[in-house]
Amino acid sequence: MKTLADLGEKEVVSLLLQGVRTTVAVGPGDDAAAIDLGDRYLVVSTDIITRSSHMPDGMTDWQVGWFAAAVNFSDIAAMGARPIGLVMAYTLPRDMPFNRLESISQGVNDCCQAVGADLLGGDTKEGTGIVLAGTALGLVDKDKILLRRGAREGDMVAVTGPLGLSAAGYEAIRNGIEDPRAVRALLEPQPRTAEGMVLAASGQVTSCMDITDGLAYSIGELSRQSGAGFEVIWENIPVGEGVREVSRKSGVPLEDLVLHFGGDYELLFTFSPQAATPLQKALEGRMHIIGQVKGSENIMIVDGRAVPLDTRGYEHFRR
Amino acid sequence: MKTLADLGEKEVVSLLLQGVRTTVAVGPGDDAAAIDLGDRYLVVSTDIITRSSHMPDGMTDWQVGWFAAAVNFSDIAAMGARPIGLVMAYTLPRDMPFNRLESISQGVNDCCQAVGADLLGGDTKEGTGIVLAGTALGLVDKDKILLRRGAREGDMVAVTGPLGLSAAGYEAIRNGIEDPRAVRALLEPQPRTAEGMVLAASGQVTSCMDITDGLAYSIGELSRQSGAGFEVIWENIPVGEGVREVSRKSGVPLEDLVLHFGGDYELLFTFSPQAATPLQKALEGRMHIIGQVKGSENIMIVDGRAVPLDTRGYEHFRR
Repeated sequence: MKTLADLGEKEVVSLLLQGVRTTVAVGPGDDAAAIDLGDRYLVVSTDIITRSSHMPDGMTDWQVGWFAAAVNFSDIAAMGARPIGLVMAYTLPRDMPFNRLESISQGVNDCCQAVGADLLGGDTKEGTGIVLAGTALGLVDKDKILLRRGAREGDMVAVTGPLGLSAAGYEAIRNGIEDPRAVRALLEPQPRTAEGMVLAASGQVTSCMDITDGLAYSIGELSRQSGAGFEVIWENIPVGEGVREVSRKSGVPLEDLVLHFGGDYELLFTFSPQAATPLQKALEGRMHIIGQVKGSENIMIVDGRAVPLDTRGYEHFRR
Repeated sequence: MKTLADLGEKEVVSLLLQGVRTTVAVGPGDDAAAIDLGDRYLVVSTDIITRSSHMPDGMTDWQVGWFAAAVNFSDIAAMGARPIGLVMAYTLPRDMPFNRLESISQGVNDCCQAVGADLLGGDTKEGTGIVLAGTALGLVDKDKILLRRGAREGDMVAVTGPLGLSAAGYEAIRNGIEDPRAVRALLEPQPRTAEGMVLAASGQVTSCMDITDGLAYSIGELSRQSGAGFEVIWENIPVGEGVREVSRKSGVPLEDLVLHFGGDYELLFTFSPQAATPLQKALEGRMHIIGQVKGSENIMIVDGRAVPLDTRGYEHFRR
């Protein structure tokens, strides 16, 4: 019998979903599920995080709480929904000082306030390690929801902000490189809920997701779900400040930091070319066009030459 | 600095909530939170469970999944809401065989189908132990929601079914007593969502909660939140079949099994006396009147004599 490590997270989830009968409007497979409430969709996403496996050692308790909330709101942002609430369930060691839990909870609270959502409640139970399981809720008009499918030949491809900062933060910590900005990007991701709502309100966006698992993987996902190829121009991808320097100092290739590491939580989206100007304006500069939807393969243009884009992402469980 | 064990779960949650600013209609403190959707409330509850701490050893994987879903739906039932969906997040050891996860997931699925809710999605991450964090969603008309506050002098007090079976199941396993029915009650709790919806639809119920933490604790909660005393008649409390025998064989007092252990997941509720007959009819016999709301103290009448009711419940973290 195969173990979870043999299969990897994505195959595990895919196999599990085969057995699920569901009547929801937008099922598992997007960043979040959507439930039909008549005029609107209720968007729901859950993410579970263990302190030991999924977070760098130097993280403060406040950052742990912020992070756990932020990754959930990022999924709400990816669907273009307005975040309305969050529940957070914890397992915690019994010998944990209460002020540590207070700091974690403050981080959760502050992230909720930053995106305009209510902390609705939670659950705390005893456990051997620190585990945080958040569930975020959002609302979006039915005709405005953003999905992973829908990108069409000729659409433009854009991201909401510079990439590679989280990866640079990770490599900075690992290699003892001084770069507080990158480390902060890694430990305090900013969910792009405001940008997601702008994209949804525009009615011009044909597909969208967040870049949690890296730009390359995300492009692979939009491509697979839309049934269309993506052509990305390497030189047009916005690179976070200081990322080149961390690449040079750490010896990690820039394309690994920018394309494959993930953790940036910007949004990747597609739209028809005539929407470019209004979208640029609505996003107040938080839009960087990186390519177009074209053909059936995913390729990257580097220095004028086309190379295939490796769209594999990071997976849990995998050896 | 005090640890979580020094404070106990209830004090921990209470202290954490002091820092939360929230605009939700029904905040933390009830079985679930309620968000105002205009005509209806969206009811949300989250529960986190670790395989090692919160579940008996003999439990099958299917039962683990069922249990994790059921405890969440029980909170939805307590608010009188129609369950609409569930998300379930897991941490799992990497060497776990996939068919074990399939069985857990099947249990989750089957519980969703039993209450008529959709499995909306989930998250799986690597962890050292098995942790399941579920979040259940429900909808209820705004004027029909059931809350813990609202019991009034003169109201009657009732439960939806016999008590003590889960406790008997626990003691049966611990003492090697043969009682498959009780063990099944412990491992496969039935969320009373149908009963909760009937109680809400009646418009006659003044307060309600589930009996997760034992009847005595639940009475203390309704009493505290309603600002009224409860008088319960011991002989009127319905006792599950076989519970007396397990008490005798195990030496655990019957009142401990029936009043203090919890895990029964029946509903405790109050209503004005004139609603007794229509409620009995609507619940098709699943209603047992156990006392009345009276005075300011919580007391139990045993054999015609009044004794104070000990309303402390089980707490996580506590030494």
